[in-house]
Amino acid sequence: IVVTKTAMDLESSKFLMNIHAGYNAIAAILQLIALVAVFENTTCLNNIPMYSLHSWVGLIHVIWYCFTLLSGFFIFLLPWARLSLRAFLMPIHVYSGLVIFGTVIATALMGVTEKLIFSLRNPAYSTFPPEGVFVNTLGLLILVFGALIFWIVTRPQWKRPKEPNSTILQPDGGTEQGARGSMPAYSGNNMDKSDSELNNEVAARKRNLALDEAGQRSTM
Amino acid sequence: IVVTKTAMDLESSKFLMNIHAGYNAIAAILQLIALVAVFENTTCLNNIPMYSLHSWVGLIHVIWYCFTLLSGFFIFLLPWARLSLRAFLMPIHVYSGLVIFGTVIATALMGVTEKLIFSLRNPAYSTFPPEGVFVNTLGLLILVFGALIFWIVTRPQWKRPKEPNSTILQPDGGTEQGARGSMPAYSGNNMDKSDSELNNEVAARKRNLALDEAGQRSTM
Repeated sequence: IVVTKTAMDLESSKFLMNIHAGYNAIAAILQLIALVAVFENTTCLNNIPMYSLHSWVGLIHVIWYCFTLLSGFFIFLLPWARLSLRAFLMPIHVYSGLVIFGTVIATALMGVTEKLIFSLRNPAYSTFPPEGVFVNTLGLLILVFGALIFWIVTRPQWKRPKEPNSTILQPDGGTEQGARGSMPAYSGNNMDKSDSELNNEVAARKRNLALDEAGQRSTM
Repeated sequence: IVVTKTAMDLESSKFLMNIHAGYNAIAAILQLIALVAVFENTTCLNNIPMYSLHSWVGLIHVIWYCFTLLSGFFIFLLPWARLSLRAFLMPIHVYSGLVIFGTVIATALMGVTEKLIFSLRNPAYSTFPPEGVFVNTLGLLILVFGALIFWIVTRPQWKRPKEPNSTILQPDGGTEQGARGSMPAYSGNNMDKSDSELNNEVAARKRNLALDEAGQRSTM
């Protein structure tokens, strides 16, 4: 029974990791389309250089996103990376994902600000034209979306419990080392699990205490 | 020895909470000065209404900040709030603090974007004048500052370990309830503690497992 459960966990964990990678591959394609639109309509056609803070932050975002995507593919998705390398890079990978997400929010808000100032000359932006109020509201909703995602990734009860026997990666230190936080452990998943299985995992977690990273979600 | 240690922890925990409250009171005063400057120089003197996304998000930020400051003062700093209320509000308080911080970053970046577009008409912003490059760089540094703070508050090894006997607040559920995350516990502090004390706390934490909130820092 123990072997079966571990195999199922592993299967499920790999499945979630593939979903995570798939979502981010789709996001990368959408970003590529958006980038082509930016360069076609602004930078190349109208001969406008990338001078604004919006464009600088956006460019940094895209480069960092590609780097995180590729390093994630080669180190976590392909089976050849050493476990110690994975354990070292996992907190950086998780942190990168969250900061990249925050950077997108910031870039979008600056883009909205720029666009409204450039577009709304007549009627003036400061007279509360419907377009201005509408796009300001869009900006607020982008911010609320970011805040909701941040709520989700920082809830401990929505974090996947640690898999003691996970082969995705395992901290090579003992429980003391894990508890001191020198090597955060990669979490397994708790989807499709009954309460009794969760309680078993809670018991396992007490034996294998390790402080996980905030925001280790497979589909984020 | 146990009684002395608990008393010291409590003393230190209260001291850190006072520092946290003091910093935020100073921040509130600085924000008040900044708000006076905004209203004196922009909104009132030049008769400009608060029409931009920057002003909307900034206003929401200030209101939310005041609400979090006051609720923190009355519920966590004054001694009269019930422990169950504190336990319920603590994760919301911590989350509010982090989202407010992110909102400040976003507001500052939108303000920088606005100011540069309005000010740099001659020489044009798009010709990379020194002022534009300088203030864009300031914007990038604001973003890097935000990313560094986010790194700090999400490191598990920099989180204060839980105090099992803390009177600041105590989860009223048992260990199972804590481990399932229904009632996150308020953490104590680990500053000025030796390694052996930390190891004792690790052992204590194993007996009192509770998933703490991400980013429970006293001086944040």
